[in-house]
Amino acid sequence: MTGPRYTPLAQSLPATVPFVGPETQERQRGAPFLARLGANESVFGPSPRAIEAMRQAAGGIWMYGDPENHDLRHALADHHGISPDNIVVGEGIDGLLGYLVRLMVAPGDAVVTSDGAYPTFNYHVAGYGGAIHKVPYSNDHEDPAALFTKAAEVGAKLVYLANPDNPMGSWHRGADIVTAMDALPDGCLLVLDEAYVECAPDGTAAPVAADDPRVIRMRTFSKVFGMAGARVGYAIGAPGLISAFNKVRNHFGMNRIAQAGALAALHDQDWLAQVQTRIASARDRIGAIARDNGLSPLPSATNFVAIDCGRDGAFAKAVLEALVAQGIFVRMPFAAPQNRCIRVSCGTEADLNAFATALPQALAAARSA
Amino acid sequence: MTGPRYTPLAQSLPATVPFVGPETQERQRGAPFLARLGANESVFGPSPRAIEAMRQAAGGIWMYGDPENHDLRHALADHHGISPDNIVVGEGIDGLLGYLVRLMVAPGDAVVTSDGAYPTFNYHVAGYGGAIHKVPYSNDHEDPAALFTKAAEVGAKLVYLANPDNPMGSWHRGADIVTAMDALPDGCLLVLDEAYVECAPDGTAAPVAADDPRVIRMRTFSKVFGMAGARVGYAIGAPGLISAFNKVRNHFGMNRIAQAGALAALHDQDWLAQVQTRIASARDRIGAIARDNGLSPLPSATNFVAIDCGRDGAFAKAVLEALVAQGIFVRMPFAAPQNRCIRVSCGTEADLNAFATALPQALAAARSA
Repeated sequence: MTGPRYTPLAQSLPATVPFVGPETQERQRGAPFLARLGANESVFGPSPRAIEAMRQAAGGIWMYGDPENHDLRHALADHHGISPDNIVVGEGIDGLLGYLVRLMVAPGDAVVTSDGAYPTFNYHVAGYGGAIHKVPYSNDHEDPAALFTKAAEVGAKLVYLANPDNPMGSWHRGADIVTAMDALPDGCLLVLDEAYVECAPDGTAAPVAADDPRVIRMRTFSKVFGMAGARVGYAIGAPGLISAFNKVRNHFGMNRIAQAGALAALHDQDWLAQVQTRIASARDRIGAIARDNGLSPLPSATNFVAIDCGRDGAFAKAVLEALVAQGIFVRMPFAAPQNRCIRVSCGTEADLNAFATALPQALAAARSA
Repeated sequence: MTGPRYTPLAQSLPATVPFVGPETQERQRGAPFLARLGANESVFGPSPRAIEAMRQAAGGIWMYGDPENHDLRHALADHHGISPDNIVVGEGIDGLLGYLVRLMVAPGDAVVTSDGAYPTFNYHVAGYGGAIHKVPYSNDHEDPAALFTKAAEVGAKLVYLANPDNPMGSWHRGADIVTAMDALPDGCLLVLDEAYVECAPDGTAAPVAADDPRVIRMRTFSKVFGMAGARVGYAIGAPGLISAFNKVRNHFGMNRIAQAGALAALHDQDWLAQVQTRIASARDRIGAIARDNGLSPLPSATNFVAIDCGRDGAFAKAVLEALVAQGIFVRMPFAAPQNRCIRVSCGTEADLNAFATALPQALAAARSA
């Protein structure tokens, strides 16, 4: 008897996971982590108003969420001073990237990204059969000019750029991105992932019109808003592009509690400001811990810090594994030369104390390996 | 300047919504519904233990959910007496159907369903370019023999069958489905949607082995478990098929609060039994209201009742619209001859009192139209 008949594309795909989750690692090591600093979650949590809104919404979970995400889209439109027609809400940036790739990328279509940039974007491109072309980072920064030149060269339909960048924490001024966009080839859409922009200096968000047809910007409640587990992201773009998501999205896919929580979180800008302050302090502390151990923290406009361990990827990986063995969950860049670093998310004082205690032992273990 | 370049398939798709949500209708009419009886949600709500678990989980929403859904998959495996390798958890049955279609259906591939069956399945098939072939209902029942014969005739990769059926509420004995599966053609996967099976008579669930490679069964926390807004569904199938979902699913797509709620809901089988009793009572009441108005309720193994309005689709639609105008949210089948019915979800006593009050006026309005 024949089994199910997969598409040729599906047959060709590996059953990979873009990231191994910390819970999986905890089950493997048989103990919980002491500090969860690997997924750039916000340990400072969401606004208490968001928590309260989610608790209030729990009893109403018997109802499907509003498939139009009306209230959240309108609140976001007010917040950004744009039209609700410029906004699509989805199941995190990951979900929205999947829909976007599906709309644009057929087997063989060219897509450009940086070597070592967000793997989940690559996962979606590969999943729809796209051909990924990569350009190197430049001095630990994504390189808009190189990305757009490569996009022109290969006739890319999409080019991905995160600003600020994950995993390096580096950033460009938004105005510089816009200037670089002059070289964006006709018919190539810039996917500008601004997941971390709320913890970046003023002027990092790209000053582009919401109707600009050359770019779609991705935003999220997973990072500074502290709601990674809620799966709420949104994209800002020209109305025609935004409405195209209605062709493919899971219309009733949004969790109703998450809708309520995101709405409340957006309205608590005081909490956002507090978190921004805590992130800045935690970045300083991570930097100080790194320097105390003879390592070089990279400047960061995100809620994490990449720490240059001073040798190659194998050494950084040994440091990381020794940290994980001590109960400190961190991650690291995948590609050279960025993989000379480990990536440490902003934590509470207790989290960072645990990291400070574990790091010298991890370095010693890596050096003696 | 050229805009973004969509795939030919994406260009061909309409920006449709499988269902208009009740919130959209409330905004259009400028008033909330008195009774929300259109989406087969469970007005009886989730287990109080699930609500409490979700409230407790709200503060931890800063963490991504476990991408393996380990605890829930293992609990479901225990519940069903199968292996966790037979279970994939996803963003509702809608999300899982999307992944399944993506794995199997390339442009032009044949898929079979019943004319008037679940539109969201058709939405996914169309979205991946599949060719949908339909067979008629037989006496308001889905017709397994006709479905499988058609599947053989067109070389279908997938055939969809809901048992119990939505929108008619009719059902087959599970053993009869299994017998009919002898005619399922080689290489055609049966998608057996058992979303409503927890409110059906014993013997409705198909007695197939979890490893049977011919079938994938869909289950959900959206119906009898009262958690539609949480977006938690799961599929049961052979391990190879189940692991194929890892090629395409949004690994971090599950809401963390929803994971906690579903786990608690599964463990409260007493609540499930209470809801089953209330559903049975509400079905009886809907039937009595229908008969009081000279209409014919159809037998139902679901949490809704299809009511035969005794004339054609235009008449039933007029009844429906008059109910909606009075604040009673109901829906109706899309295809003839089933569209002579309206479909009324089980409600609270207050909900059904409101329906009982509105129905005579709605019928009068429809008859005078």
